[in-house]
Amino acid sequence: VTLTLDRLSLNQATVKYADLGEAIEVCVANGITGIGLWRDRVDEVGVESAFQMIAAAGLHVSSLCRGGFLTAADHDQFAAAIKDNIEAIETSAALEADTLILVCGGIPAGSSLVAARSRVADGLDAIADRARQLGVQLAIEPLHPMFAADRCVVSTLDQALDLAEPFPVDVVGVVVDTYHIWWDPRLESAIHRAGDRIASFQLCDWVVPLPADMLLGRGHLGDGSIDFGPIAAAVEQAGYSGYVEVEIFNADVWSAPAAVTARIVGDRFAALT
Amino acid sequence: VTLTLDRLSLNQATVKYADLGEAIEVCVANGITGIGLWRDRVDEVGVESAFQMIAAAGLHVSSLCRGGFLTAADHDQFAAAIKDNIEAIETSAALEADTLILVCGGIPAGSSLVAARSRVADGLDAIADRARQLGVQLAIEPLHPMFAADRCVVSTLDQALDLAEPFPVDVVGVVVDTYHIWWDPRLESAIHRAGDRIASFQLCDWVVPLPADMLLGRGHLGDGSIDFGPIAAAVEQAGYSGYVEVEIFNADVWSAPAAVTARIVGDRFAALT
Repeated sequence: VTLTLDRLSLNQATVKYADLGEAIEVCVANGITGIGLWRDRVDEVGVESAFQMIAAAGLHVSSLCRGGFLTAADHDQFAAAIKDNIEAIETSAALEADTLILVCGGIPAGSSLVAARSRVADGLDAIADRARQLGVQLAIEPLHPMFAADRCVVSTLDQALDLAEPFPVDVVGVVVDTYHIWWDPRLESAIHRAGDRIASFQLCDWVVPLPADMLLGRGHLGDGSIDFGPIAAAVEQAGYSGYVEVEIFNADVWSAPAAVTARIVGDRFAALT
Repeated sequence: VTLTLDRLSLNQATVKYADLGEAIEVCVANGITGIGLWRDRVDEVGVESAFQMIAAAGLHVSSLCRGGFLTAADHDQFAAAIKDNIEAIETSAALEADTLILVCGGIPAGSSLVAARSRVADGLDAIADRARQLGVQLAIEPLHPMFAADRCVVSTLDQALDLAEPFPVDVVGVVVDTYHIWWDPRLESAIHRAGDRIASFQLCDWVVPLPADMLLGRGHLGDGSIDFGPIAAAVEQAGYSGYVEVEIFNADVWSAPAAVTARIVGDRFAALT
């Protein structure tokens, strides 16, 4: 598998306490040419400045996090979510990001899993045109089933593909994030099925035991249970040749200096290849 | 859906701090005719005494927990697991339990998900004959994917069915436990596929947020995110007409008096029907 260093992208969330300037700096210092951005950090400097900073550093934006949260049962809340997604699409276009990642949302109070899932499809319908106009590829991210209730009712890659299928590939793709889908017995066939719908490939290990806040139970590559080789091989075989992001939510990783974290990310990535 | 009270079974783990005598007592007091047993609580009084106590109270054993943990990479540990499963099968037969529930085990240090899954199949091969001899139906329980690393590499009902398929239905079945598989986008078709392989149907709600110990993130029916009606309807349509166990791992539920817990279990179950 050709996970060469020139394909590595550092997701900004991995160096959570660094601002955009520092995140760019540690990428450059470690030969990392891709960066995955978060809207709040971009907004701190403004979209245009952010794009200039990134371009000046010779970096490429592999993804923007995030749109989504399309499951609101309340009409006004749903409309507000659509508006927010349109803004995210415009930001993604301005940053020339490879893709805008969508975390689809959980089950609102009084609603059900099935109803929430159907609203995700409605939401995609409502935002896909704007994405197409601006040449932005949306990426539906299946989240681990432990987040199905409160964060994302899309739980498997196959389900994300079912949602993406009505749309052209260059408008709606999917995310392969090892942390969320490594356990899936159908993962290999789902990745094969995904083919050129793979808009983003993210790496992160699964540590045992998970900490109290499940969102933070992620580890540097090699610190957990995930066998990355077969997943990376399947993604490559499916035809994906874009950036490979490392995205780690972990309190210990976050409390380390960003420069240290970026170095470890690079070393561990190199060890996989 | 005909979830009538005569189909309710109280899994002993729901009243964790009650011994077998007290668990039987609260079942009888609440008109609950089925009980799901755990081997440690049975061993406290001995298998024969346990069976006599249960029969004298007019109860039926809907399941015995548990066998499994078949993923050891070490030869001696794997052999010990097989021996333990054979004992569990004999206990299950002596108690005239409807089924012996198997929690298949996690990924041992230095092993991989794929290798561990293949050892589960080997383990089933090694114990199925004894189950057939004694007329015990084994039940493979898919556990929530958040337990794939450390507890059970079988994560979906379809995967459990793939493992069960080489064996006769009355030797190897599957468990439908709402807590573990409610999120699965393919759940309805998997339950349909399961048909008469369904050896146990367990109910338990998913509460948000999960507590620090994920094992304890379960709630009384109605306290969480699960829509039980469609799942119960699918299980009924698949042909399952046996006991329906309520099994709740939750520190607050455990700290309530067993009599109170059993009454709530009965009330919430009645509210579903």
